[in-house]
Amino acid sequence: MSGKVYLMGAGPGDPELMTLKAARALGRADVVLVDALVNRGCLAHARSDARIVEVGKRTGSGTSQAFIEKAMVQTAKNGLTVARLKGGDPFIFGRGGEELRALLDAGVEVEVIPGITAGTGVPAALGIPLTHRGVAHGVTFVTGHGAELDWQALVRSKTTLVIYMGLANLGAIVRALESAGMDPATPACLIENGTLGNQRQVVTRLDALSGAGFRGPALIVIGAVVALAGLPELRRKVAA
Amino acid sequence: MSGKVYLMGAGPGDPELMTLKAARALGRADVVLVDALVNRGCLAHARSDARIVEVGKRTGSGTSQAFIEKAMVQTAKNGLTVARLKGGDPFIFGRGGEELRALLDAGVEVEVIPGITAGTGVPAALGIPLTHRGVAHGVTFVTGHGAELDWQALVRSKTTLVIYMGLANLGAIVRALESAGMDPATPACLIENGTLGNQRQVVTRLDALSGAGFRGPALIVIGAVVALAGLPELRRKVAA
Repeated sequence: MSGKVYLMGAGPGDPELMTLKAARALGRADVVLVDALVNRGCLAHARSDARIVEVGKRTGSGTSQAFIEKAMVQTAKNGLTVARLKGGDPFIFGRGGEELRALLDAGVEVEVIPGITAGTGVPAALGIPLTHRGVAHGVTFVTGHGAELDWQALVRSKTTLVIYMGLANLGAIVRALESAGMDPATPACLIENGTLGNQRQVVTRLDALSGAGFRGPALIVIGAVVALAGLPELRRKVAA
Repeated sequence: MSGKVYLMGAGPGDPELMTLKAARALGRADVVLVDALVNRGCLAHARSDARIVEVGKRTGSGTSQAFIEKAMVQTAKNGLTVARLKGGDPFIFGRGGEELRALLDAGVEVEVIPGITAGTGVPAALGIPLTHRGVAHGVTFVTGHGAELDWQALVRSKTTLVIYMGLANLGAIVRALESAGMDPATPACLIENGTLGNQRQVVTRLDALSGAGFRGPALIVIGAVVALAGLPELRRKVAA
């Protein structure tokens, strides 16, 4: 009898922002394959006898994608239930599509459980609405690590811009947006370890945005909605 | 002693896709103000003696935004704990920013609890990864009900396009995207009642996309990633 894989998201950081469904699936798993960026508090829902396998790739020296996919397929084919726990949502910059494909191609039963992606969960922790009547009628999520983006199109779209993994290229991103015509005074913020106890953020404007002093993981939000940040202290900073 | 408002998202439909944090907050609330689109299964986490107030606006004849904001402020000022339960995520097309502002301006303590927005949770139910290496390096969420969108910028951005509330204007949306240069053969799908037991969907291509037979609420996903839909039956339809 073949097992099953739950391909699921742990949410943006705070373990309480995991879904009820993900928590229950963790409680059914014989084996949990967990990414480096997932807060260890999420594992409190795993069975005490579950095998926890760390497959993080945070340093670049971690487990290869091929190994992870093979391990999931093999474990499920041995009749075990696998929880593949990824940070955020599996299908937004999470390589979840590749893992789903590998499982389906191998004939393994899989259930996808979405999670709150950092792009929505982290701005919420600052009270930043990603869309707002008369301010932003949409939101775009991109990555900042070398993808060839059409910055002019992103600026012209007038959507709130959320950039994942942009810390290392932040200077180039700011220059690209300014060259593409974005107002240098556009409100912008950078949030490190969002939704966790060690969350830190800087709320400023595009031309002053800098990653100095931050190590990540970090999320960048750029757009007029940043000025609506709900925390009074943040509102003062944007107005200053 | 003043109360508190939890401004929170119920997720995309399936009550199990609510967060642990939202479920716990519901259990603390004296009063729950719930939108029409929220599945009633979510209320299982409310206290049996909690007062449930329906403030849905589904038909256009529902409760006004001003009434909702006033009710939250007044209830909290009376020392009660309020759970303001909105569909999806409060800050993505949910008017959560307006409600947060009204609460802060009134000096009411508020905690925002994000939820899985339909734009990520519903495609996951079909195994559609919104981003995928070599296929889509970003995703954009917009609404389809009359907003003045720069369709050319959206097409040029080459991000996966997710359209909320687009059923009524679907014909105009398809024409706008084609006029803006999008390939008519671009994979596209429409999902009604996503993640719920009565979910229905059509997976096709842009120039064949139609809302005939659907009543909503519906989500539209347009982009090459739709062809990666994880369900074998859907993959066959796209290939056909």
